[in-house]
Amino acid sequence: MTRIAFGIEYDGTDFLGWQSQTQQPTLQDTVSAALSFVAGEKLTLVCAGRTDTGVHARCQVVHCDTEAQRTARAWVLGGNSRLPPAVCIRWAHVVDDAFHARFSAQSRAYRYCIVNRPVRLALEARFATWERVPLDVAAMQSACIVLLGTQDFSSFRTSACQARSPVRTITALDWHRDGEEVTLRIAGNGFLHHMVRNIVGSALRVGRGDAGVAWIAEVLSATDRNRAGPTAPPEGLLFEGPRYPAYFGLPAESTLA
Amino acid sequence: MTRIAFGIEYDGTDFLGWQSQTQQPTLQDTVSAALSFVAGEKLTLVCAGRTDTGVHARCQVVHCDTEAQRTARAWVLGGNSRLPPAVCIRWAHVVDDAFHARFSAQSRAYRYCIVNRPVRLALEARFATWERVPLDVAAMQSACIVLLGTQDFSSFRTSACQARSPVRTITALDWHRDGEEVTLRIAGNGFLHHMVRNIVGSALRVGRGDAGVAWIAEVLSATDRNRAGPTAPPEGLLFEGPRYPAYFGLPAESTLA
Repeated sequence: MTRIAFGIEYDGTDFLGWQSQTQQPTLQDTVSAALSFVAGEKLTLVCAGRTDTGVHARCQVVHCDTEAQRTARAWVLGGNSRLPPAVCIRWAHVVDDAFHARFSAQSRAYRYCIVNRPVRLALEARFATWERVPLDVAAMQSACIVLLGTQDFSSFRTSACQARSPVRTITALDWHRDGEEVTLRIAGNGFLHHMVRNIVGSALRVGRGDAGVAWIAEVLSATDRNRAGPTAPPEGLLFEGPRYPAYFGLPAESTLA
Repeated sequence: MTRIAFGIEYDGTDFLGWQSQTQQPTLQDTVSAALSFVAGEKLTLVCAGRTDTGVHARCQVVHCDTEAQRTARAWVLGGNSRLPPAVCIRWAHVVDDAFHARFSAQSRAYRYCIVNRPVRLALEARFATWERVPLDVAAMQSACIVLLGTQDFSSFRTSACQARSPVRTITALDWHRDGEEVTLRIAGNGFLHHMVRNIVGSALRVGRGDAGVAWIAEVLSATDRNRAGPTAPPEGLLFEGPRYPAYFGLPAESTLA
Protein backbone atom coordinates (compact mmCIF):
# COMPACT_ATOMS: atom_id res chain seq x y z
CA MET A 1 0.00 0.00 0.00
CA THR A 2 1.35 3.36 -1.05
CA ARG A 3 0.18 6.83 -0.06
CA ILE A 4 0.28 9.34 -2.90
CA ALA A 5 -0.30 13.10 -2.89
CA PHE A 6 -1.49 15.02 -5.94
CA GLY A 7 -1.53 18.74 -6.82
CA ILE A 8 -4.82 19.56 -8.57
CA GLU A 9 -5.68 22.74 -10.50
CA TYR A 10 -9.20 23.68 -11.57
CA ASP A 11 -11.50 26.31 -13.00
CA GLY A 12 -14.45 25.69 -10.65
CA THR A 13 -17.00 27.65 -12.71
CA ASP A 14 -18.89 24.63 -13.98
CA PHE A 15 -18.56 22.41 -10.87
CA LEU A 16 -20.73 22.11 -7.76
CA GLY A 17 -17.68 22.46 -5.51
CA TRP A 18 -15.11 19.89 -4.39
CA GLN A 19 -17.16 17.62 -2.15
CA SER A 20 -18.91 14.55 -3.58
CA GLN A 21 -22.72 14.75 -3.35
CA THR A 22 -25.76 13.44 -5.20
CA GLN A 23 -25.85 16.40 -7.63
CA GLN A 24 -23.17 16.47 -10.32
CA PRO A 25 -20.59 17.41 -11.42
CA THR A 26 -18.31 17.70 -8.39
CA LEU A 27 -14.54 17.95 -8.47
CA GLN A 28 -14.02 15.08 -6.04
CA ASP A 29 -15.99 12.65 -8.22
CA THR A 30 -14.36 13.93 -11.42
CA VAL A 31 -10.78 13.67 -10.13
CA SER A 32 -11.49 10.41 -8.31
CA ALA A 33 -12.83 8.80 -11.49
CA ALA A 34 -9.75 9.82 -13.49
CA LEU A 35 -7.21 8.63 -10.89
CA SER A 36 -9.16 5.42 -10.17
CA PHE A 37 -8.99 4.62 -13.88
CA VAL A 38 -5.20 4.99 -13.80
CA ALA A 39 -4.96 2.91 -10.61
CA GLY A 40 -7.30 0.19 -11.83
CA GLU A 41 -9.06 0.35 -8.46
CA LYS A 42 -11.45 2.68 -6.68
CA LEU A 43 -9.55 5.44 -4.86
CA THR A 44 -10.82 7.58 -2.00
CA LEU A 45 -9.45 11.13 -2.07
CA VAL A 46 -8.90 13.37 0.96
CA CYS A 47 -8.38 17.07 0.16
CA ALA A 48 -6.60 19.94 1.93
CA GLY A 49 -9.52 22.34 1.72
CA ARG A 50 -13.00 21.84 0.30
CA THR A 51 -13.98 24.52 -2.19
CA ASP A 52 -17.58 25.64 -2.77
CA THR A 53 -19.51 25.79 -6.03
CA GLY A 54 -17.78 28.11 -8.51
CA VAL A 55 -14.56 28.48 -6.48
CA HIS A 56 -11.24 27.77 -8.23
CA ALA A 57 -7.95 26.20 -7.15
CA ARG A 58 -4.39 26.82 -8.29
CA CYS A 59 -3.02 23.87 -6.33
CA GLN A 60 -5.47 21.91 -4.25
CA VAL A 61 -3.67 18.98 -2.61
CA VAL A 62 -5.24 15.55 -2.13
CA HIS A 63 -3.98 12.20 -0.94
CA CYS A 64 -5.11 8.60 -1.31
CA ASP A 65 -3.88 5.09 -0.58
CA THR A 66 -3.47 2.57 -3.38
CA GLU A 67 -2.09 -0.86 -4.21
CA ALA A 68 -1.23 0.38 -7.71
CA GLN A 69 2.41 0.92 -8.63
CA ARG A 70 2.65 3.78 -11.12
CA THR A 71 5.33 6.33 -11.92
CA ALA A 72 4.59 10.00 -11.16
CA ARG A 73 4.56 10.58 -14.91
CA ALA A 74 1.95 7.84 -15.42
CA TRP A 75 -0.32 9.28 -12.72
CA VAL A 76 -0.10 12.78 -14.20
CA LEU A 77 -0.35 11.96 -17.91
CA GLY A 78 -2.89 9.18 -17.43
CA GLY A 79 -5.01 11.24 -15.08
CA ASN A 80 -4.94 14.34 -17.28
CA SER A 81 -6.01 12.35 -20.30
CA ARG A 82 -9.18 11.37 -18.39
CA LEU A 83 -9.96 14.84 -16.99
CA PRO A 84 -12.06 17.59 -18.65
CA PRO A 85 -10.22 20.75 -19.87
CA ALA A 86 -11.11 22.72 -16.72
CA VAL A 87 -9.19 20.33 -14.40
CA CYS A 88 -5.63 19.05 -14.40
CA ILE A 89 -3.17 17.20 -12.20
CA ARG A 90 -0.08 19.37 -11.67
CA TRP A 91 2.05 16.68 -9.99
CA ALA A 92 2.00 13.32 -8.17
CA HIS A 93 4.31 12.39 -5.32
CA VAL A 94 4.68 9.30 -3.11
CA VAL A 95 4.46 10.41 0.53
CA ASP A 96 5.01 8.93 3.99
CA ASP A 97 2.00 7.25 5.64
CA ALA A 98 2.05 10.08 8.20
CA PHE A 99 1.08 12.58 5.50
CA HIS A 100 -2.53 13.75 5.51
CA ALA A 101 -3.65 16.35 2.93
CA ARG A 102 -5.88 18.08 5.45
CA PHE A 103 -4.26 17.57 8.85
CA SER A 104 -0.62 17.95 7.77
CA ALA A 105 -1.26 21.34 6.11
CA GLN A 106 0.27 24.13 8.18
CA SER A 107 -0.93 27.05 6.09
CA ARG A 108 -3.44 27.77 3.36
CA ALA A 109 -3.52 30.73 0.97
CA TYR A 110 -6.40 32.27 -0.95
CA ARG A 111 -6.75 35.09 -3.45
CA TYR A 112 -9.95 37.05 -4.02
CA CYS A 113 -10.20 39.15 -7.20
CA ILE A 114 -12.60 42.07 -7.75
CA VAL A 115 -12.83 44.12 -10.93
CA ASN A 116 -13.87 47.63 -9.90
CA ARG A 117 -15.42 49.50 -12.83
CA PRO A 118 -18.73 50.95 -14.07
CA VAL A 119 -19.61 48.15 -16.52
CA ARG A 120 -20.06 44.45 -15.87
CA LEU A 121 -17.37 41.91 -16.74
CA ALA A 122 -16.83 39.77 -19.82
CA LEU A 123 -13.16 38.68 -20.12
CA GLU A 124 -12.78 38.25 -16.33
CA ALA A 125 -16.34 37.02 -15.64
CA ARG A 126 -15.24 33.51 -14.59
CA PHE A 127 -12.44 34.57 -12.23
CA ALA A 128 -13.42 37.89 -10.69
CA THR A 129 -16.35 39.57 -9.00
CA TRP A 130 -17.71 42.85 -10.34
CA GLU A 131 -18.01 45.89 -8.10
CA ARG A 132 -19.24 49.12 -9.66
CA VAL A 133 -18.87 51.48 -6.68
CA PRO A 134 -15.32 52.92 -6.60
CA LEU A 135 -13.55 51.16 -3.72
CA ASP A 136 -11.29 52.80 -1.14
CA VAL A 137 -8.70 50.03 -0.97
CA ALA A 138 -6.57 51.79 1.65
CA ALA A 139 -9.63 51.87 3.96
CA MET A 140 -10.27 48.16 3.30
CA GLN A 141 -6.69 47.30 4.25
CA SER A 142 -6.79 49.49 7.37
CA ALA A 143 -10.09 47.94 8.44
CA CYS A 144 -8.97 44.33 7.91
CA ILE A 145 -5.61 44.60 9.67
CA VAL A 146 -7.35 43.66 12.97
CA LEU A 147 -8.06 40.21 11.52
CA LEU A 148 -4.36 39.28 11.62
CA GLY A 149 -3.34 36.93 14.41
CA THR A 150 -5.15 34.24 16.41
CA GLN A 151 -8.81 35.06 16.99
CA ASP A 152 -12.37 33.78 17.26
CA PHE A 153 -13.81 34.18 13.75
CA SER A 154 -17.41 33.26 14.64
CA SER A 155 -18.65 36.45 12.98
CA PHE A 156 -17.22 35.31 9.64
CA ARG A 157 -18.31 31.64 9.59
CA THR A 158 -21.45 30.38 7.93
CA SER A 159 -24.10 28.81 10.17
CA ALA A 160 -23.50 25.54 8.29
CA CYS A 161 -19.82 25.46 9.32
CA GLN A 162 -18.94 22.14 10.98
CA ALA A 163 -15.57 23.11 12.48
CA ARG A 164 -15.29 22.38 16.22
CA SER A 165 -13.46 25.58 17.00
CA PRO A 166 -14.01 29.07 15.51
CA VAL A 167 -10.42 30.03 16.37
CA ARG A 168 -8.02 30.47 13.46
CA THR A 169 -4.72 32.27 12.86
CA ILE A 170 -4.38 34.66 9.92
CA THR A 171 -0.73 35.24 9.05
CA ALA A 172 -1.00 37.48 5.97
CA LEU A 173 -3.70 39.78 4.64
CA ASP A 174 -3.09 42.24 1.83
CA TRP A 175 -5.55 44.29 -0.24
CA HIS A 176 -3.97 45.67 -3.40
CA ARG A 177 -5.20 47.72 -6.38
CA ASP A 178 -3.74 47.43 -9.90
CA GLY A 179 -5.83 49.61 -12.21
CA GLU A 180 -9.38 48.21 -12.20
CA GLU A 181 -8.29 45.07 -10.32
CA VAL A 182 -8.61 44.94 -6.54
CA THR A 183 -7.12 41.79 -5.04
CA LEU A 184 -7.03 40.29 -1.56
CA ARG A 185 -4.26 37.85 -0.71
CA ILE A 186 -4.85 36.09 2.59
CA ALA A 187 -3.10 33.20 4.33
CA GLY A 188 -3.50 31.43 7.64
CA ASN A 189 -3.41 28.06 9.34
CA GLY A 190 -6.97 27.35 8.24
CA PHE A 191 -10.25 28.98 7.29
CA LEU A 192 -13.82 28.36 8.44
CA HIS A 193 -16.59 27.70 5.93
CA HIS A 194 -17.22 30.90 3.88
CA MET A 195 -14.68 32.76 6.04
CA VAL A 196 -12.74 34.38 3.17
CA ARG A 197 -15.91 35.33 1.28
CA ASN A 198 -17.48 36.77 4.46
CA ILE A 199 -14.34 38.82 5.14
CA VAL A 200 -14.48 40.11 1.54
CA GLY A 201 -18.20 40.91 1.79
CA SER A 202 -17.55 42.87 4.96
CA ALA A 203 -14.48 44.65 3.57
CA LEU A 204 -16.56 45.70 0.55
CA ARG A 205 -18.91 47.60 2.88
CA VAL A 206 -15.92 49.57 4.14
CA GLY A 207 -14.53 50.04 0.62
CA ARG A 208 -17.82 51.47 -0.64
CA GLY A 209 -18.00 53.83 2.34
CA ASP A 210 -21.07 52.12 3.83
CA ALA A 211 -19.15 51.33 7.04
CA GLY A 212 -16.20 52.98 8.77
CA VAL A 213 -12.68 51.64 9.12
CA ALA A 214 -13.36 50.59 12.75
CA TRP A 215 -16.41 48.50 11.81
CA ILE A 216 -14.54 45.25 10.98
CA ALA A 217 -13.03 45.27 14.50
CA GLU A 218 -16.54 45.63 15.96
CA VAL A 219 -17.83 42.74 13.86
CA LEU A 220 -14.88 40.52 14.88
CA SER A 221 -15.32 41.17 18.60
CA ALA A 222 -19.09 40.56 18.42
CA THR A 223 -18.48 36.85 17.47
CA ASP A 224 -21.91 36.93 15.82
CA ARG A 225 -22.42 36.07 12.13
CA ASN A 226 -25.39 38.44 11.96
CA ARG A 227 -23.08 41.40 12.40
CA ALA A 228 -20.85 40.82 9.33
CA GLY A 229 -21.47 41.73 5.71
CA PRO A 230 -22.95 39.39 3.08
CA THR A 231 -20.98 36.47 1.64
CA ALA A 232 -19.09 37.69 -1.45
CA PRO A 233 -19.72 35.69 -4.69
CA PRO A 234 -17.68 32.51 -5.31
CA GLU A 235 -16.26 33.32 -8.76
CA GLY A 236 -13.70 35.80 -7.37
CA LEU A 237 -12.19 33.21 -5.00
CA LEU A 238 -9.11 31.13 -5.82
CA PHE A 239 -7.63 28.59 -3.41
CA GLU A 240 -3.91 29.08 -4.05
CA GLY A 241 -3.25 25.95 -2.02
CA PRO A 242 -1.92 24.50 1.23
CA ARG A 243 1.69 24.31 2.45
CA TYR A 244 3.30 21.36 4.24
CA PRO A 245 6.51 20.84 6.26
CA ALA A 246 9.55 20.37 4.03
CA TYR A 247 10.18 16.81 5.25
CA PHE A 248 7.24 15.52 3.19
CA GLY A 249 9.26 16.42 0.08
CA LEU A 250 6.40 17.91 -1.94
CA PRO A 251 7.03 20.39 -4.80
CA ALA A 252 8.09 23.90 -3.74
CA GLU A 253 4.65 25.40 -4.37
CA SER A 254 3.20 23.15 -1.63
CA THR A 255 6.09 23.33 0.83
CA LEU A 256 6.61 25.83 3.64
CA ALA A 257 9.38 28.26 2.81
CA MET B 1 -28.38 60.44 -38.33
CA THR B 2 -25.75 59.97 -35.66
CA ARG B 3 -22.50 58.00 -35.81
CA ILE B 4 -21.68 56.17 -32.60
CA ALA B 5 -18.55 54.27 -31.57
CA PHE B 6 -18.58 51.45 -29.01
CA GLY B 7 -15.81 49.72 -27.04
CA ILE B 8 -16.55 45.97 -26.91
CA GLU B 9 -14.90 43.37 -24.64
CA TYR B 10 -15.25 39.62 -25.16
CA ASP B 11 -14.11 36.16 -24.19
CA GLY B 12 -14.05 34.68 -27.70
CA THR B 13 -13.82 31.03 -26.59
CA ASP B 14 -17.36 30.11 -27.52
CA PHE B 15 -17.73 32.30 -30.64
CA LEU B 16 -16.88 31.64 -34.28
CA GLY B 17 -14.97 34.90 -34.52
CA TRP B 18 -16.15 38.48 -35.10
CA GLN B 19 -17.40 38.34 -38.67
CA SER B 20 -21.03 37.51 -39.40
CA GLN B 21 -21.47 34.25 -41.34
CA THR B 22 -24.03 31.47 -41.76
CA GLN B 23 -22.66 29.44 -38.82
CA GLN B 24 -23.39 30.77 -35.35
CA PRO B 25 -22.65 32.27 -32.91
CA THR B 26 -20.52 35.16 -34.16
CA LEU B 27 -19.67 38.28 -32.18
CA GLN B 28 -20.87 40.65 -34.90
CA ASP B 29 -24.35 39.11 -34.93
CA THR B 30 -24.50 38.92 -31.13
CA VAL B 31 -23.46 42.53 -30.55
CA SER B 32 -25.51 43.79 -33.49
CA ALA B 33 -28.67 42.12 -32.13
CA ALA B 34 -28.19 43.70 -28.69
CA LEU B 35 -27.50 47.22 -29.99
CA SER B 36 -30.25 47.01 -32.62
CA PHE B 37 -32.69 46.18 -29.82
CA VAL B 38 -31.63 49.32 -27.94
CA ALA B 39 -31.86 51.42 -31.13
CA GLY B 40 -35.20 50.00 -32.20
CA GLU B 41 -33.78 49.61 -35.71
CA LYS B 42 -31.35 47.29 -37.48
CA LEU B 43 -27.77 48.51 -37.08
CA THR B 44 -24.78 47.60 -39.25
CA LEU B 45 -21.52 47.43 -37.29
CA VAL B 46 -18.04 48.11 -38.69
CA CYS B 47 -15.16 46.90 -36.51
CA ALA B 48 -11.52 47.96 -36.09
CA GLY B 49 -10.09 44.48 -36.48
CA ARG B 50 -11.84 41.18 -37.19
CA THR B 51 -10.90 38.46 -34.73
CA ASP B 52 -10.87 34.76 -35.58
CA THR B 53 -12.66 31.90 -33.83
CA GLY B 54 -11.55 31.65 -30.19
CA VAL B 55 -9.67 34.98 -30.14
CA HIS B 56 -10.51 37.49 -27.39
CA ALA B 57 -10.74 41.29 -27.24
CA ARG B 58 -10.10 43.72 -24.40
CA CYS B 59 -11.45 46.68 -26.34
CA GLN B 60 -12.58 46.03 -29.88
CA VAL B 61 -13.99 49.26 -31.35
CA VAL B 62 -16.98 49.34 -33.69
CA HIS B 63 -19.07 52.12 -35.21
CA CYS B 64 -22.54 52.38 -36.71
CA ASP B 65 -24.99 55.02 -37.95
CA THR B 66 -28.41 55.32 -36.36
CA GLU B 67 -31.50 57.52 -36.24
CA ALA B 68 -31.97 56.57 -32.57
CA GLN B 69 -31.28 59.18 -29.90
CA ARG B 70 -29.97 57.44 -26.76
CA THR B 71 -27.67 58.50 -23.95
CA ALA B 72 -24.29 56.76 -23.66
CA ARG B 73 -25.60 55.21 -20.43
CA ALA B 74 -28.67 53.82 -22.22
CA TRP B 75 -26.55 52.27 -24.99
CA VAL B 76 -24.21 50.63 -22.46
CA LEU B 77 -26.73 49.42 -19.89
CA GLY B 78 -29.37 48.46 -22.46
CA GLY B 79 -26.84 46.68 -24.66
CA ASN B 80 -25.22 44.81 -21.76
CA SER B 81 -28.60 43.60 -20.53
CA ARG B 82 -29.09 41.89 -23.93
CA LEU B 83 -25.59 40.40 -24.23
CA PRO B 84 -24.40 37.00 -22.94
CA PRO B 85 -21.94 36.96 -19.97
CA ALA B 86 -18.90 36.55 -22.24
CA VAL B 87 -19.49 39.89 -24.02
CA CYS B 88 -19.93 43.46 -22.77
CA ILE B 89 -20.02 47.03 -24.01
CA ARG B 90 -17.34 49.04 -22.20
CA TRP B 91 -18.46 52.47 -23.48
CA ALA B 92 -20.47 54.32 -26.14
CA HIS B 93 -19.48 57.65 -27.67
CA VAL B 94 -21.01 59.90 -30.34
CA VAL B 95 -18.36 60.56 -33.00
CA ASP B 96 -17.87 62.78 -36.03
CA ASP B 97 -19.07 61.41 -39.39
CA ALA B 98 -15.41 61.28 -40.45
CA PHE B 99 -14.72 58.55 -37.85
CA HIS B 100 -14.38 55.02 -39.19
CA ALA B 101 -13.58 52.19 -36.75
CA ARG B 102 -11.28 50.48 -39.25
CA PHE B 103 -9.81 53.25 -41.39
CA SER B 104 -9.33 55.86 -38.65
CA ALA B 105 -7.34 53.47 -36.42
CA GLN B 106 -3.66 54.44 -36.40
CA SER B 107 -2.37 51.59 -34.27
CA ARG B 108 -3.52 48.20 -33.02
CA ALA B 109 -2.15 46.20 -30.10
CA TYR B 110 -2.27 42.47 -29.39
CA ARG B 111 -1.11 40.24 -26.56
CA TYR B 112 -0.28 36.55 -26.95
CA CYS B 113 -0.05 34.45 -23.79
CA ILE B 114 1.75 31.10 -23.47
CA VAL B 115 1.95 29.02 -20.29
CA ASN B 116 5.26 27.16 -20.41
CA ARG B 117 5.18 24.11 -18.13
CA PRO B 118 5.21 20.30 -18.23
CA VAL B 119 1.48 19.74 -17.65
CA ARG B 120 -1.48 20.96 -19.67
CA LEU B 121 -3.58 23.93 -18.57
CA ALA B 122 -6.80 24.12 -16.57
CA LEU B 123 -7.23 27.58 -14.96
CA GLU B 124 -5.69 29.38 -17.96
CA ALA B 125 -7.06 27.04 -20.65
CA ARG B 126 -9.38 29.67 -22.18
CA PHE B 127 -6.83 32.49 -22.40
CA ALA B 128 -3.41 30.95 -22.94
CA THR B 129 -1.67 28.38 -25.13
CA TRP B 130 0.24 25.52 -23.56
CA GLU B 131 3.89 24.89 -24.45
CA ARG B 132 5.70 22.07 -22.65
CA VAL B 133 9.21 22.52 -24.06
CA PRO B 134 11.13 25.08 -21.92
CA LEU B 135 11.33 28.25 -24.01
CA ASP B 136 14.39 30.46 -24.44
CA VAL B 137 12.55 33.79 -24.30
CA ALA B 138 15.72 35.87 -24.79
CA ALA B 139 16.33 34.01 -28.06
CA MET B 140 12.70 34.64 -29.15
CA GLN B 141 13.10 38.37 -28.49
CA SER B 142 16.44 38.55 -30.31
CA ALA B 143 15.03 36.65 -33.28
CA CYS B 144 11.87 38.80 -33.57
CA ILE B 145 13.57 42.20 -33.31
CA VAL B 146 14.02 42.21 -37.11
CA LEU B 147 10.23 42.40 -37.49
CA LEU B 148 10.15 45.96 -36.12
CA GLY B 149 9.65 48.70 -38.69
CA THR B 150 7.96 48.85 -42.11
CA GLN B 151 8.29 45.60 -44.05
CA ASP B 152 6.67 43.13 -46.41
CA PHE B 153 5.07 40.51 -44.15
CA SER B 154 4.05 38.08 -46.89
CA SER B 155 5.79 35.24 -45.04
CA PHE B 156 3.45 35.72 -42.06
CA ARG B 157 0.07 36.17 -43.81
CA THR B 158 -2.35 33.35 -44.44
CA SER B 159 -3.12 32.45 -48.05
CA ALA B 160 -6.73 33.53 -47.39
CA CYS B 161 -5.64 37.08 -46.48
CA GLN B 162 -7.53 39.66 -48.57
CA ALA B 163 -5.37 42.72 -47.82
CA ARG B 164 -4.15 44.52 -50.95
CA SER B 165 -0.68 45.16 -49.58
CA PRO B 166 1.48 42.87 -47.43
CA VAL B 167 3.39 45.89 -46.08
CA ARG B 168 2.80 46.78 -42.43
CA THR B 169 4.65 48.71 -39.73
CA ILE B 170 5.37 47.09 -36.36
CA THR B 171 6.14 49.71 -33.71
CA ALA B 172 6.52 47.55 -30.58
CA LEU B 173 7.37 43.89 -30.01
CA ASP B 174 8.24 42.51 -26.58
CA TRP B 175 8.57 38.93 -25.39
CA HIS B 176 8.51 38.64 -21.59
CA ARG B 177 8.62 35.79 -19.07
CA ASP B 178 6.95 35.93 -15.63
CA GLY B 179 7.34 32.50 -14.01
CA GLU B 180 5.47 29.99 -16.21
CA GLU B 181 3.88 32.76 -18.29
CA VAL B 182 5.52 33.85 -21.53
CA THR B 183 3.81 36.83 -23.13
CA LEU B 184 4.22 38.69 -26.41
CA ARG B 185 3.04 42.29 -26.63
CA ILE B 186 2.99 43.59 -30.17
CA ALA B 187 1.67 46.78 -31.75
CA GLY B 188 1.67 48.28 -35.22
CA ASN B 189 -0.40 50.20 -37.73
CA GLY B 190 -2.18 47.04 -38.80
CA PHE B 191 -1.83 43.28 -39.03
CA LEU B 192 -2.45 40.84 -41.88
CA HIS B 193 -4.74 37.84 -41.43
CA HIS B 194 -3.09 35.38 -38.95
CA MET B 195 0.00 37.60 -38.82
CA VAL B 196 0.36 37.67 -35.02
CA ARG B 197 -0.29 33.92 -34.70
CA ASN B 198 2.19 33.15 -37.50
CA ILE B 199 4.83 35.31 -35.83
CA VAL B 200 4.18 33.44 -32.55
CA GLY B 201 4.31 30.04 -34.25
CA SER B 202 7.65 30.97 -35.81
CA ALA B 203 9.07 32.45 -32.60
CA LEU B 204 8.14 29.20 -30.79
CA ARG B 205 10.46 27.29 -33.15
CA VAL B 206 13.29 29.55 -32.03
CA GLY B 207 12.27 29.36 -28.37
CA ARG B 208 12.30 25.54 -28.45
CA GLY B 209 15.73 25.52 -30.10
CA ASP B 210 14.40 24.07 -33.38
CA ALA B 211 15.61 27.12 -35.29
CA GLY B 212 18.38 29.64 -34.71
CA VAL B 213 18.05 33.29 -33.78
CA ALA B 214 18.76 34.36 -37.39
CA TRP B 215 15.97 32.22 -38.81
CA ILE B 216 13.13 34.76 -38.40
CA ALA B 217 15.09 37.27 -40.51
CA GLU B 218 15.49 34.62 -43.25
CA VAL B 219 11.75 33.88 -43.17
CA LEU B 220 10.87 37.58 -43.36
CA SER B 221 13.13 38.28 -46.33
CA ALA B 222 11.85 35.21 -48.21
CA THR B 223 8.33 36.80 -48.44
CA ASP B 224 6.98 33.24 -48.72
CA ARG B 225 4.36 31.84 -46.30
CA ASN B 226 5.75 28.34 -46.75
CA ARG B 227 8.94 29.36 -44.96
CA ALA B 228 7.38 30.43 -41.63
CA GLY B 229 6.30 28.29 -38.68
CA PRO B 230 2.76 26.99 -38.09
CA THR B 231 -0.08 29.28 -37.00
CA ALA B 232 -0.18 29.37 -33.18
CA PRO B 233 -3.55 28.44 -31.57
CA PRO B 234 -6.21 31.18 -31.19
CA GLU B 235 -6.90 30.91 -27.44
CA GLY B 236 -3.65 32.66 -26.46
CA LEU B 237 -4.47 35.73 -28.56
CA LEU B 238 -6.08 38.88 -27.16
CA PHE B 239 -6.83 41.96 -29.28
CA GLU B 240 -6.04 44.75 -26.80
CA GLY B 241 -7.63 47.20 -29.21
CA PRO B 242 -7.08 50.02 -31.70
CA ARG B 243 -6.00 53.62 -31.03
CA TYR B 244 -7.38 56.73 -32.74
CA PRO B 245 -6.27 60.37 -33.01
CA ALA B 246 -7.18 62.39 -29.92
CA TYR B 247 -9.55 64.70 -31.83
CA PHE B 248 -12.18 61.94 -32.03
CA GLY B 249 -12.51 62.27 -28.25
CA LEU B 250 -12.74 58.54 -27.47
CA PRO B 251 -11.86 57.16 -23.99
CA ALA B 252 -8.14 57.12 -23.12
CA GLU B 253 -7.79 53.36 -23.73
CA SER B 254 -8.66 53.92 -27.42
CA THR B 255 -6.81 57.20 -27.96
CA LEU B 256 -3.21 57.67 -29.11
CA ALA B 257 -1.00 58.89 -26.28
